[in-house]
Amino acid sequence: MTAPSLDFWFDLASHYSYLSAMRIDELATRAGVTVRWRPFLLGPIFDALGWEAPPFVAQKEKGVYVMRDMERQCRKYALPWAPPSEFPRRALLATRVAVLAADEPWLPTWCRAVMLRNFGEDREVDSPEAISAMLEARGVEAAPVLALALAEDNRQRLRERTQRARALGIFGAPTFFVGKEMFWGNDRLEDAIVEALSTAP
Amino acid sequence: MTAPSLDFWFDLASHYSYLSAMRIDELATRAGVTVRWRPFLLGPIFDALGWEAPPFVAQKEKGVYVMRDMERQCRKYALPWAPPSEFPRRALLATRVAVLAADEPWLPTWCRAVMLRNFGEDREVDSPEAISAMLEARGVEAAPVLALALAEDNRQRLRERTQRARALGIFGAPTFFVGKEMFWGNDRLEDAIVEALSTAP
Repeated sequence: MTAPSLDFWFDLASHYSYLSAMRIDELATRAGVTVRWRPFLLGPIFDALGWEAPPFVAQKEKGVYVMRDMERQCRKYALPWAPPSEFPRRALLATRVAVLAADEPWLPTWCRAVMLRNFGEDREVDSPEAISAMLEARGVEAAPVLALALAEDNRQRLRERTQRARALGIFGAPTFFVGKEMFWGNDRLEDAIVEALSTAP
Repeated sequence: MTAPSLDFWFDLASHYSYLSAMRIDELATRAGVTVRWRPFLLGPIFDALGWEAPPFVAQKEKGVYVMRDMERQCRKYALPWAPPSEFPRRALLATRVAVLAADEPWLPTWCRAVMLRNFGEDREVDSPEAISAMLEARGVEAAPVLALALAEDNRQRLRERTQRARALGIFGAPTFFVGKEMFWGNDRLEDAIVEALSTAP
């Protein structure tokens, strides 16, 4: 017997990924659904699709709206919101740490810490100093993690993760998978959980 | 005292507008919110924004996903769904009738009939024959309505309606307004109703 589960693909710098990262564990736990966190980079995906910039940047009107929408959504979900003064915010090192931590129990809290700092405090999330401070705050010794995160095999691991996202047909974030069934956007998180429950044997 | 209300801007050929058109009256009536139906044309808006095609067409991967998403959303909301074999489906005459019927009590049922035929039956919704049959089915004499719909002042009315949509900053459909507060997408319908309730004096 397989427990109901879903894959949660997200980019640490993606606005709507922030909403899902903050909501998914509570919803999934309540429903008895296991979540596999799958951090990846959207930038190379947009490049591969031939989109010259993130849609919120390329389509200015949509970008303005998204900021207002995020403000309202964060109020609705009672989440901190400080509009990032930089978008997309560079979070490459934080993402490398997340990929390195694929099997660590602290992966979800790590991702939430990075996103809360970016979207809830409007602070940078890419310097070794910031990353080290965030790691130490969760009781993780920073120096060895940073060394492993920057090592070539981990860089390669992130490249493969992002290629995998592309192969799955992902074109935005967050994206949820229940088996081969794809759900795009924070607005589909609940639907993905229902799907996970309905397809578990 | 003003009753809570919202403006519902939509394109008869827009997928997600279909979901909202089929849901809005029940939700709004239950909440005691008045809805003003505002049909317009998305095409000229995309032109004005410099988007060479609807996003679902320009971004192929998104277009494929949208069809799957629509199928699931229609199942969720118990709505008929027959993927339109033509997109965007031309619905200019039907839209002219809708604009002409701005103050008619049959405007909502008209729009739902057109959209059910397009999205629920995959049938064309632009020929005078189809339009006449749909009008007569609602007890509206077709010939005079068609003549008025095609008259120059009504064509001008539709152009002005679409210019108004552009001036409001609309870049997609459906879009809801509560005062100046804009909500984009069927996924924000409930939020717009809550906003209407919270801002009514």
